[in-house]
Amino acid sequence: MAAPPFPHPGFMRAAVRLARKGLGRTSPNPAVGAVVVHAGRIVGKGYHRAAGLPHAEVVALRHAGSAARGADLYVTLEPCDHHGRTGPCTAAILEAGIARVAYAVRDPNPKVRGGGAARLRKAGLTVHEGLLQAESAEITRGFRRWVVSGVPYVTLKLALSLDGQIASASGDSRWISGEPARLRVHRMRSEADAVMVGGGTARRDDPRLTSRIPGSRQPKRVVLTSRPAELLQRRLLREEGGEVIVACPTGIGKRDVEALRSLGARVLPLPSRQGKVRARDFLAALGAEGVTSLLVEGGGRIAAWLAEEGSVDRYVVYVAPLLLGEGVRAVSGWAAKSPAAGKRLVFTSVRRVGSDIEITAEPERP
Amino acid sequence: MAAPPFPHPGFMRAAVRLARKGLGRTSPNPAVGAVVVHAGRIVGKGYHRAAGLPHAEVVALRHAGSAARGADLYVTLEPCDHHGRTGPCTAAILEAGIARVAYAVRDPNPKVRGGGAARLRKAGLTVHEGLLQAESAEITRGFRRWVVSGVPYVTLKLALSLDGQIASASGDSRWISGEPARLRVHRMRSEADAVMVGGGTARRDDPRLTSRIPGSRQPKRVVLTSRPAELLQRRLLREEGGEVIVACPTGIGKRDVEALRSLGARVLPLPSRQGKVRARDFLAALGAEGVTSLLVEGGGRIAAWLAEEGSVDRYVVYVAPLLLGEGVRAVSGWAAKSPAAGKRLVFTSVRRVGSDIEITAEPERP
Repeated sequence: MAAPPFPHPGFMRAAVRLARKGLGRTSPNPAVGAVVVHAGRIVGKGYHRAAGLPHAEVVALRHAGSAARGADLYVTLEPCDHHGRTGPCTAAILEAGIARVAYAVRDPNPKVRGGGAARLRKAGLTVHEGLLQAESAEITRGFRRWVVSGVPYVTLKLALSLDGQIASASGDSRWISGEPARLRVHRMRSEADAVMVGGGTARRDDPRLTSRIPGSRQPKRVVLTSRPAELLQRRLLREEGGEVIVACPTGIGKRDVEALRSLGARVLPLPSRQGKVRARDFLAALGAEGVTSLLVEGGGRIAAWLAEEGSVDRYVVYVAPLLLGEGVRAVSGWAAKSPAAGKRLVFTSVRRVGSDIEITAEPERP
Repeated sequence: MAAPPFPHPGFMRAAVRLARKGLGRTSPNPAVGAVVVHAGRIVGKGYHRAAGLPHAEVVALRHAGSAARGADLYVTLEPCDHHGRTGPCTAAILEAGIARVAYAVRDPNPKVRGGGAARLRKAGLTVHEGLLQAESAEITRGFRRWVVSGVPYVTLKLALSLDGQIASASGDSRWISGEPARLRVHRMRSEADAVMVGGGTARRDDPRLTSRIPGSRQPKRVVLTSRPAELLQRRLLREEGGEVIVACPTGIGKRDVEALRSLGARVLPLPSRQGKVRARDFLAALGAEGVTSLLVEGGGRIAAWLAEEGSVDRYVVYVAPLLLGEGVRAVSGWAAKSPAAGKRLVFTSVRRVGSDIEITAEPERP
């Protein structure tokens, strides 16, 4: 019998679907999925469930058992070849007797890069790279950013009226977007390692920053503020949800730190100049906490602060069919001198979500 | 031989294409196209070129000549049955010996409504209504609004940055949109009876408000201002283009009126209360001038003034991949008290135009 065609995108698609199950749960590891295919049928499935638990390949190989011998392995990320918390996946693959390996995305980890594939090739396996690369790269974008730079992948979410306001003049932002767009945001929260707002938004809107999707993981909740005492009565610290991290310029009072800690928050003191924290320092501190992906939810000053330093990787903007007139601007505390001096982006997708429009954009790369 | 299927959308599509050629040139008449079909082939084509010239049906029938006998007529608007500047089209259709008539949209003219179709049916012709209705209604939306209400169909165009600004803090709006979006706006100008801006925009941006599409008709150029003297040095009055109409509250000085007139402008005095003109009065005055479609191009106060009175029929918004921070708001001089109190719209289309996004919206009808 002729060997079945290799690699087949249908099997990689199955691996991608498995990888998505781990999204938001594996940090600081990437979400990875894998399937073992024998004689054209899936005989083993696996995904990485959480840091410290076995990698996707190992789970799939165990599931396949003896059927893995002479089989194909499809995995969304290049198998690791180093001893981390678990043994190297390359060893497990060789031991199981896998004949061919297809992976979607090269491991960006400087400790691994190309090492896994090279090891397998040297052992005589057929190795293929790049099938469904875009889908798999999307799933691992947080890990890939973080593992090479130490800072998380930053997504800035905005919910705007058609005339570009994030709240009415009274500061009221509930609700500009419709239900389907808000549901999308809860999904984004459940897939992000951490969610953040500025002190002003925390004070005014008093958000919980939890994902209300049933059974979903709760992201860490981060507030950047120079007046942390104002948070003590906020729902963030009073209601259930992910761990709260209060980031503030060094030098805040000991009593405030103690009060925050007694409510279960971590306090992250950050270097500052004249009370101003640099976005890069803030993101590096979050990266050191193992945060590989950050969802920023407001307000306008935080948006300007991140955008100005070029620290936003993706903008996700919900535009609602609504005019608010002179309300609250999406980006404030900063002004481009002219259209030519504005921050140039590139639109990467546009679609309808309920009665709203979802626009995604990324910074223009020169 | 069996009669060919009737009506056939392909032939109405040809009529719609012909109608579009007249767009912006026929005012206050509607743009209409017609084809005569004999034995499954188009034997006559016509469209209405300008008020005072023959209607589309008459042009197509003349073109068909004797081939019109026993033929089908496809026309985008119900044939007229009244004596206007030209004879009734129903008479010409009967005289030519047409057997079947398909029209897309009923004539909204209260003088005509249903009359043309009834006359033809009574004479024994087969008459069909509604083929490609949406496309034909789109072409005649100005006429249909104007003929029943006396006011033009109002399209408000906005060119925004992703963060909702129509200009940078310095007032500079050149260029937020890319070239393809700007070309679309020139096309919109060439298809509108009139283009308007407020006095502030005329003063600051000094626009010409011409269509730069080669060979295109030039729309009337309308400025609403209480300080008309400020326009005297503006390109609007100094450079070539469509007729200039200066609308202003009654009571402006005779010398200003004379100066404007000497530069070729029409002056339209409007009733006002405490210096404020009502949008309805302004639009009725334009309607009386035969303006059936108006493209509004700025600025933020004009947008608010029209939107507040519910006088905008369609919003066409170009969103550019750009952040401008604290610039000039799209809608100013008005503020909704809360998101629930905002002006609710419905998005009717979303598409990419070059590197920008074009969003069209209409007021939500309760």
